[in-house]
Amino acid sequence: MSATNRQIRLAARPVGEVKPEDWEHGSEPITEPGPGRFAGRTRVISLDPAMRGWLDDRPSYLPPVGIGEVMRAGSVVEVTASNHPGFQPGDHVVGTFGVQEYVVSDGRGAMKIDTSLAPPSTYLGALGMPGMTAYFGLLDVGALQDGETVVVSGAAGAVGSIAGQIAKARGCRVVGIAGGPEKCAMLTGELGFDAAIDYRAEDVRKALREHAPDGIDVYFDNVGGDILDAALTRLAMHARVVICGAISQYNNATPVHGPSNYLSLLVRRARMEGFVVFDYAKRYAEAAQEISALIGAGRVKVKEHVVRGTVDDFPAALQMLFRGENVGKLVLELA
Amino acid sequence: MSATNRQIRLAARPVGEVKPEDWEHGSEPITEPGPGRFAGRTRVISLDPAMRGWLDDRPSYLPPVGIGEVMRAGSVVEVTASNHPGFQPGDHVVGTFGVQEYVVSDGRGAMKIDTSLAPPSTYLGALGMPGMTAYFGLLDVGALQDGETVVVSGAAGAVGSIAGQIAKARGCRVVGIAGGPEKCAMLTGELGFDAAIDYRAEDVRKALREHAPDGIDVYFDNVGGDILDAALTRLAMHARVVICGAISQYNNATPVHGPSNYLSLLVRRARMEGFVVFDYAKRYAEAAQEISALIGAGRVKVKEHVVRGTVDDFPAALQMLFRGENVGKLVLELA
Repeated sequence: MSATNRQIRLAARPVGEVKPEDWEHGSEPITEPGPGRFAGRTRVISLDPAMRGWLDDRPSYLPPVGIGEVMRAGSVVEVTASNHPGFQPGDHVVGTFGVQEYVVSDGRGAMKIDTSLAPPSTYLGALGMPGMTAYFGLLDVGALQDGETVVVSGAAGAVGSIAGQIAKARGCRVVGIAGGPEKCAMLTGELGFDAAIDYRAEDVRKALREHAPDGIDVYFDNVGGDILDAALTRLAMHARVVICGAISQYNNATPVHGPSNYLSLLVRRARMEGFVVFDYAKRYAEAAQEISALIGAGRVKVKEHVVRGTVDDFPAALQMLFRGENVGKLVLELA
Repeated sequence: MSATNRQIRLAARPVGEVKPEDWEHGSEPITEPGPGRFAGRTRVISLDPAMRGWLDDRPSYLPPVGIGEVMRAGSVVEVTASNHPGFQPGDHVVGTFGVQEYVVSDGRGAMKIDTSLAPPSTYLGALGMPGMTAYFGLLDVGALQDGETVVVSGAAGAVGSIAGQIAKARGCRVVGIAGGPEKCAMLTGELGFDAAIDYRAEDVRKALREHAPDGIDVYFDNVGGDILDAALTRLAMHARVVICGAISQYNNATPVHGPSNYLSLLVRRARMEGFVVFDYAKRYAEAAQEISALIGAGRVKVKEHVVRGTVDDFPAALQMLFRGENVGKLVLELA
């Protein structure tokens, strides 16, 4: 281990796809925790589609990452020293600690996790923000009813894979949309989806007609673009379209492709609704408990894609995410 | 009066704007009403933006008008002869009787109106489908709360003018968007809107920033396109976007311009929802009663644009509608 804290900072606002030169790889001295603080060493860093939005200088649900600032990221750290009564050396703690090897924290927004129940990475995935997002998006925003037909895009990703499995556990017919035969095979195989559509090889609109013949009751959208448009043509009456993200649009240098078929909301008396998972913070325990129980019962399989390396591998790992090269939750595990 | 029933039938499916040659002007003999039927003479014909959608051969909330069929239209007829116990000669009846001078009806979907309370045209406007659409769209779909900020597009039209005035009557701040200084002056003058934006002369996005500084709680959209996109940039948290129509897009020969800024639904935790007024048929009486009371109290002013002529003037009147040349509810009154 180096005696310095290696960090990835934002060097420039990316235009379109994030390029290597948009990042600054640097380091600073490791600092000791002051009163009421703890120090920790980063174990696992989360990679999330939402990160792309944090890099743009425009109003959103969080302020943009500033130029020169350590890149914002969720991570799990192991406490190495503490002057905070709530955290002891050896504790594993999840929080938004950024892309760096060492952190000092006053504990705000930090939560101790139990690594005997699940590995640290799972607290960034199924039991972390992606799991919470799947749960509240599907059940609260989507108002899912048992037995409905659910279509999930980005279905092999961190959020989509959990959303689809929660829907299956509620007795729904679940169709996943993902890129490539391997992901699709995983969806209908290991994860138990009723059908999978490979958007790279199939006409999504046609495939939805086949796999959701009575229409879509809940469409959980992680991707936007043409796939959202295809789903809009197949809505059942009173359908709910849950806008969770739009990964196909995040790297656009041109304006977002808006859904041409949005008038089907009128014809089908349907709604399209967005949400931000942070609004459900008071109910995270409820969701974590239910997802834990489903994992324990074997009804939710946790898929994680672990890149092992150093913080310097963060930019390349983020590219993997936008190229759809991950299966399940993508994390960077520090050696 | 001719001894024949003059009719306007659909000759061809229009591409883009409806052209004169898309219509067939013809006539057929007047028929006597059989048992259980009444005959009537058309007094006023409704012109509605929704008509454009009925001309396209694609699935919607109503089947398309068939080639060679009498054009579908709401109208008020005066009963001339009747073998139906519910309708007597001299009665005025509103229904979907089509663009023709004479009708024979079995009474299904027909409703007697009281012309001592309001002229026939008003039963096609403020007390007809446009009024119902404004009422249920705003209050049920939009879940309007007293005191909220409401923005209405197509605000000088049949639906928009009523929607804005209902919102004003509920103590809301109401901003109307319309085309041209005359319409805007009417909105803030006679109709009592708090502000009006002339989309032909102003930057709608900037004007919304000025007139809805705390954001839009309910956006009632009749137009779609760039104005919808502008409104999406100004949503308040938990805003509701009511999709009532998209007149700017109906004559497109190219695909509909989808709302590029739909991701603000996510950032603002907002929803966009469509509806079809027919679903509220059981509650029309409730809406008509409230709108009548508001008219009686002078809190809703009824704006009607009456074209006087024959059924042969229908195609030109419909063009007026899509060119925004009407103020308030556009009707064709037969001489």
